[in-house]
Amino acid sequence: MKLAVIHGSTRANGNTEYLTYRAVPKEKATHIYLRDYQIQPIIDERHEKNGFQDVYDDHTKVIDLMLEHDVLVFSTPIYWYSMSGAMKIFIDRWSQIMRDPDYTHFREELGKKKAYLVAVGGDNPHIKGLPLIQQFKYICDFYGMSFEGYVIGKASKPEDIRNDQKALQAASSLIKEY
Amino acid sequence: MKLAVIHGSTRANGNTEYLTYRAVPKEKATHIYLRDYQIQPIIDERHEKNGFQDVYDDHTKVIDLMLEHDVLVFSTPIYWYSMSGAMKIFIDRWSQIMRDPDYTHFREELGKKKAYLVAVGGDNPHIKGLPLIQQFKYICDFYGMSFEGYVIGKASKPEDIRNDQKALQAASSLIKEY
Amino acid sequence: MKLAVIHGSTRANGNTEYLTYRAVPKEKATHIYLRDYQIQPIIDERHEKNGFQDVYDDHTKVIDLMLEHDVLVFSTPIYWYSMSGAMKIFIDRWSQIMRDPDYTHFREELGKKKAYLVAVGGDNPHIKGLPLIQQFKYICDFYGMSFEGYVIGKASKPEDIRNDQKALQAASSLIKEY
Amino acid sequence: MKLAVIHGSTRANGNTEYLTYRAVPKEKATHIYLRDYQIQPIIDERHEKNGFQDVYDDHTKVIDLMLEHDVLVFSTPIYWYSMSGAMKIFIDRWSQIMRDPDYTHFREELGKKKAYLVAVGGDNPHIKGLPLIQQFKYICDFYGMSFEGYVIGKASKPEDIRNDQKALQAASSLIKEY
Repeated sequence: MKLAVIHGSTRANGNTEYLTYRAVPKEKATHIYLRDYQIQPIIDERHEKNGFQDVYDDHTKVIDLMLEHDVLVFSTPIYWYSMSGAMKIFIDRWSQIMRDPDYTHFREELGKKKAYLVAVGGDNPHIKGLPLIQQFKYICDFYGMSFEGYVIGKASKPEDIRNDQKALQAASSLIKEY
Repeated sequence: MKLAVIHGSTRANGNTEYLTYRAVPKEKATHIYLRDYQIQPIIDERHEKNGFQDVYDDHTKVIDLMLEHDVLVFSTPIYWYSMSGAMKIFIDRWSQIMRDPDYTHFREELGKKKAYLVAVGGDNPHIKGLPLIQQFKYICDFYGMSFEGYVIGKASKPEDIRNDQKALQAASSLIKEY
Repeated sequence: MKLAVIHGSTRANGNTEYLTYRAVPKEKATHIYLRDYQIQPIIDERHEKNGFQDVYDDHTKVIDLMLEHDVLVFSTPIYWYSMSGAMKIFIDRWSQIMRDPDYTHFREELGKKKAYLVAVGGDNPHIKGLPLIQQFKYICDFYGMSFEGYVIGKASKPEDIRNDQKALQAASSLIKEY
Repeated sequence: MKLAVIHGSTRANGNTEYLTYRAVPKEKATHIYLRDYQIQPIIDERHEKNGFQDVYDDHTKVIDLMLEHDVLVFSTPIYWYSMSGAMKIFIDRWSQIMRDPDYTHFREELGKKKAYLVAVGGDNPHIKGLPLIQQFKYICDFYGMSFEGYVIGKASKPEDIRNDQKALQAASSLIKEY
């Protein structure tokens, strides 16, 4: 089982990463930091005569890396009660990938993977983070990915997460695949 | 009452816009198309010593325009069971605005406004769009904005929305302020 | 197409019924009022050696009636942000029906039906009624019933619903089957 | 701090109780088993000229007991993606209590309490139990009760819950008040 963590934080070594490393230590997975890649927001050209125009950025680089792994851990701070913009931009572009002749296998490949979610927010995340959990479930369902579990942490200021003992404990037993 | 519509579609004259114009005809409001503005995703620098660095893009232009109105209609296609990346990027940056010395009144001003949501999706949006509704409610609650109503439409291919008579009808009676 | 409406109101001619008749006029369907039947809450005996003990009440009468129809409209006031106790008691007992040797076809039969929901609440039902919508979707999914649509109305005092023009309008175009 | 646990299970010593005792050992709280009390479903007579008629059952006995405590743990199996009928019947009747001249202090008293939820289901409860969490949050909000936390367990057959190590662990650190 090969694990990849896809980090949607824009801040290095923040609370979300801290909690995520508790779930997946650095050496146990490929850690992909979306902030290290240039990824453009999608422009919906599904219905253009010539379909999507090529976008010259790093999106397929991340997609390729992601597809090499069996278990995907999505890690995101909760911004305005959903995933970070960086994570959303990355996922929005999957609509383009699905129409890319080089990725006709994309949906089927994702359908073989297992997914986890780690999310950290400051404003009552155990309640106000639930729409994100539900949204993520729908994304998994679309691809036939198995949504294996999630951990929600509460933190706002730097290092806050160290006080969320319940989340740290839950994270440490989140992943079943190693 | 001054109305503004904030459009999160990346495609002009698509289904979401069509439904939105049924709720708010072009001449009845200021229509702001986020795709016409350059807006960078947020980089979380809340906890940096010097706070957020200035970002030279169009974000405050849209914010200023938005603040001049009393009723805000957010219009977004449903991408992956939430708002479009374009809309999310715009809203994520509100975290930066709140720490901007020029916008100390931002939260309070939003708290005086009324908000509506128009959302269109192709995959069972009346169920799978509900996390977006809930998320939007939490955003409104944060600012004390009054969430006055929403319409969900079902459409996938161009012009599909014209067949969603229920949504068109609901949109036409959505806004109470004119 | 034979329609049945299952009414979970405990009060006759209340707001929920008013809205429901707008969706399904009295003469267009079999109207089943749960308050007219004696139905006991379930006692979970799934794991007893002899399984469920017979319950001598009207539950199977309602079940039999329900199964004779193709389209089921569930109508319930929103009590404490979910269906009424009367409706919940009725549905809880389905767990017993599924283990009843006389109803081995129950799950499969329900899977052929179409379902609608009409719900009326007084406390921001368009937001706080959403968990009920989601719950109802899960129930339908369990049986493979097709959840065709829902209407949410806002009313608290008697006759309030007459002022909810949007809900009345939406109800009048809810059912596609006649 | 006085703790009470309100058990909505209809089966003694089932999975939900097992998990709940991990959160609140028997000797640390008053354990109230709703199945030991006769409680009638509400009949909505809010709008009758003379209001609610007296109901001669055990409801106020449980209410009185509940009100003597500071922390309330609601424990329920997940039946059809929400609380058990027994629990729903109990809570539905709160609408009657609020209009009872002997309980004019009811809402205010509840507003001083802290609440927890323990819920156990068999069908993907970490996703399909979320509407129940949200519903429970709305109930707490109505009264101004502080919703302090919840644990969801997965179990179907007797003793299944013993295998849900994550839930058992989470339950053991759920309650902050002792």
